[in-house]
Amino acid sequence: MSVQKLCAEGIGTAFLLIGVVGSGIMGAALADGNNAIALLANAIATGCTLYFIITILGPISGAHFNPAVTLAFFLRREITPGIATAYVAVQIIGGILGVWACHIMFDLDILQFSNTDRTGVSQWFSEILATFGLLFVIFGGIHSPREAVPTLVALYITGAYWFTSSTSFANPAVTIARGFSDTFAGINPGHIPMFILMQLIGTGLAALILPRLFRN
Amino acid sequence: MSVQKLCAEGIGTAFLLIGVVGSGIMGAALADGNNAIALLANAIATGCTLYFIITILGPISGAHFNPAVTLAFFLRREITPGIATAYVAVQIIGGILGVWACHIMFDLDILQFSNTDRTGVSQWFSEILATFGLLFVIFGGIHSPREAVPTLVALYITGAYWFTSSTSFANPAVTIARGFSDTFAGINPGHIPMFILMQLIGTGLAALILPRLFRN
Amino acid sequence: MSVQKLCAEGIGTAFLLIGVVGSGIMGAALADGNNAIALLANAIATGCTLYFIITILGPISGAHFNPAVTLAFFLRREITPGIATAYVAVQIIGGILGVWACHIMFDLDILQFSNTDRTGVSQWFSEILATFGLLFVIFGGIHSPREAVPTLVALYITGAYWFTSSTSFANPAVTIARGFSDTFAGINPGHIPMFILMQLIGTGLAALILPRLFRN
Amino acid sequence: MSVQKLCAEGIGTAFLLIGVVGSGIMGAALADGNNAIALLANAIATGCTLYFIITILGPISGAHFNPAVTLAFFLRREITPGIATAYVAVQIIGGILGVWACHIMFDLDILQFSNTDRTGVSQWFSEILATFGLLFVIFGGIHSPREAVPTLVALYITGAYWFTSSTSFANPAVTIARGFSDTFAGINPGHIPMFILMQLIGTGLAALILPRLFRN
Repeated sequence: MSVQKLCAEGIGTAFLLIGVVGSGIMGAALADGNNAIALLANAIATGCTLYFIITILGPISGAHFNPAVTLAFFLRREITPGIATAYVAVQIIGGILGVWACHIMFDLDILQFSNTDRTGVSQWFSEILATFGLLFVIFGGIHSPREAVPTLVALYITGAYWFTSSTSFANPAVTIARGFSDTFAGINPGHIPMFILMQLIGTGLAALILPRLFRN
Repeated sequence: MSVQKLCAEGIGTAFLLIGVVGSGIMGAALADGNNAIALLANAIATGCTLYFIITILGPISGAHFNPAVTLAFFLRREITPGIATAYVAVQIIGGILGVWACHIMFDLDILQFSNTDRTGVSQWFSEILATFGLLFVIFGGIHSPREAVPTLVALYITGAYWFTSSTSFANPAVTIARGFSDTFAGINPGHIPMFILMQLIGTGLAALILPRLFRN
Repeated sequence: MSVQKLCAEGIGTAFLLIGVVGSGIMGAALADGNNAIALLANAIATGCTLYFIITILGPISGAHFNPAVTLAFFLRREITPGIATAYVAVQIIGGILGVWACHIMFDLDILQFSNTDRTGVSQWFSEILATFGLLFVIFGGIHSPREAVPTLVALYITGAYWFTSSTSFANPAVTIARGFSDTFAGINPGHIPMFILMQLIGTGLAALILPRLFRN
Repeated sequence: MSVQKLCAEGIGTAFLLIGVVGSGIMGAALADGNNAIALLANAIATGCTLYFIITILGPISGAHFNPAVTLAFFLRREITPGIATAYVAVQIIGGILGVWACHIMFDLDILQFSNTDRTGVSQWFSEILATFGLLFVIFGGIHSPREAVPTLVALYITGAYWFTSSTSFANPAVTIARGFSDTFAGINPGHIPMFILMQLIGTGLAALILPRLFRN
């Protein structure tokens, strides 16, 4: 198992959380209470971040940055259980370090826990759909001749911030890390397990449906 | 007739309506009454959605997601009447299911009918021009060497949200489905027939003019 | 001289003015007095419009849509005086027709003249720089292997809306046509001649400097 | 040493500062006190500017426009000390001339010094991370088959405006030039040395870490 790949997964997930949490802090600080403007900044900055981390690190580690994506590759028998486990571990660690780096950058207490409630059937259903959609663009785009995946994932998530009520976490490592930030992008840690369960259900549905749709 | 193609048309149109209606709900909920910000979120999220559904599903079904586009291909004798009819049916069904999925995601009554008036000569003329423009970018871009259609359609619609007074429905299946949502993107069902008629007129004009302009 | 080319220049310039003027009307109508949001919508919609008209019509007419661009090609001896004159004529006519189509779409008086003052040394200097910059990206990008010009021009103008005090008209046909609309994007007809003079000065500077910089 | 290359570095850096400072002035003037909207305009216009200057001038000079980038290439022994020194000089001169051109375009006093405080540990740490990230996308993307660097840098900076508390200057020439403008994008000259020191630390970290990560 290559150290270089694990570093890539860790650095990429750290940048992803910096993009998500940092832009949420800046957006909310400047938007004067208009949450649509804060979310627009948050969505655009997250899309930009996804584009550059997937483009740069894709050739090294495959650019998962997401245990749901790693699980989907494992279910397709494209990676071994050992690599999958190690990927998930560094994704979670990298994500939390990214959140802490954000807190340093914005002069906040490093260790925090979110008080933002994100729960209820409508948000849970959003997470199933959001995760299914993310795997839909990844496994639909992965054999494209134009290496379209960075653009696809970036635009998918930028849109999905708006078309799901949960703002599309769609990523267990991101969900855990966002529990550690009591800022715009945070999630009450007590609401994390159900989000992750829904993300896993979305992954399972994708594993069932997408091979039939894409025949790959 | 391939089931895979019909599934692709249904899933794609469902995602399109999720993108349009969901982002409208989220935008209006957060924008604090500033409809320009809500429409900006709506337009950007719709553009993102069009990009990913056309890129991913284009190789499977051609990525019409729109009875006006299907009709245009039929008028060019590029698809049979049977496939065209089936495409239109799954587009409408997929669109309505997408709207209902949105309502679940945002914790709203599933079955609704819009009360938003969208009528009058200026909006009707907008729909003729919007549909003509959509077919202009599709049939102008389709023979491009760079597979530019997903980007062209996404940016065309993002712009056309702003430069037509109807916000460019330009799609009978989308128009019907938006009748089922009393939210930001809705349309009073009584105003749907004239919108669809105008979209068909735009399609007819495109069928007359575009082959002469593009010589294809 | 090909009728198809002249039609392409006319249709493209009409769409350009629809994009500029229409999105200005919609943005100002919805933005609740916040002109930054109106200008953001205006800039994004204009960028989208430039992308699709240049991509689609470039292979037919070269996609000038701008007498300054046509003049620059003429100064490089790449088009004849006859074609240049005809291009400029259809650009102006197409632009005005585009503005009138906008007025129909937004239920406004068709024939209008703007009362928006756009004058003074700072705006005149802006137009010189804006036109020079436009020709910089066109003649710098035109020999690129990736056919980058549609993206370059779209992003250049989206940016230049913000970094010049005139919002970068940079186009005599667009300037004349915007004189015919007393809406967000309008310009007092009395201020048009100086804008066009500055655009011609920018074109002259570009003709002097760019061949030395790009050696083409 | 080619005069053409030095001109390209000077013109490109001038355009970069026009993009950054000009859009800041326009955004702040129109945003009615909502700094999130001003920053959104600022970030989008800067991203657009970076895209076009790097695409157009990359083939001529390499499109550094940034002493930290020039230093990084020097540390990789890809340019000589003489060229590096000359590049840095024209970057600084071009940047200041760009700021002055902005002041003319917006009818402001040409010679100004900023009063905007940008200091403190959180902003300093932001500059280390921002500069490291910039070099991460440049040296990660530079061997990409698709010539992705203009898009990568543009989207990286658009995102980094939001996810760092300093709004990611990440460029000593830009930092110096922004000291000359008492507008939205300005920085108190007394706070410039620490920003540049942090940018150099970020460059040093990148020189240590990136060759190991990318093996190039």
